[in-house]
Amino acid sequence: LAPTTRTRCCQAPQEELLRKLNEQWDILVLMEVKMKKMKGSIRHLRLTKAKLREELHEKDQLLAMAVIRKKHGM
Amino acid sequence: LAPTTRTRCCQAPQEELLRKLNEQWDILVLMEVKMKKMKGSIRHLRLTKAKLREELHEKDQLLAMAVIRKKHGM
Repeated sequence: LAPTTRTRCCQAPQEELLRKLNEQWDILVLMEVKMKKMKGSIRHLRLTKAKLREELHEKDQLLAMAVIRKKHGM
Repeated sequence: LAPTTRTRCCQAPQEELLRKLNEQWDILVLMEVKMKKMKGSIRHLRLTKAKLREELHEKDQLLAMAVIRKKHGM
């Protein structure tokens, strides 16, 4: 073995581990970005849901009023 | 240094890296579980949104009919 290789006998697995650690880190970063987007989607969907529920409630009130008007011939 | 320590001169950083790798792995697994739950929430919220939109459409039709009836004194 060449001297440089011999002095680095223990660095190979370490470099391999470092490479894996970096790979995993990259995946973690990507997942964090994805999770942030998903959190945004959930927040947005919850707002939309609340808005739709409110609209539905308003329409129900209008319909109830229409029924009352019809009953009393107004 | 004791002989055992000396023979393991290169294992210490390797063990440290392995420990970090395992820690990161645990975080990745936890994040995956969380993401799965979030995906479920998004799917559920999308279904609810679609259902509410449909209900809203039906109420709108009922209201439109009520307006027509009123116009024609039915």
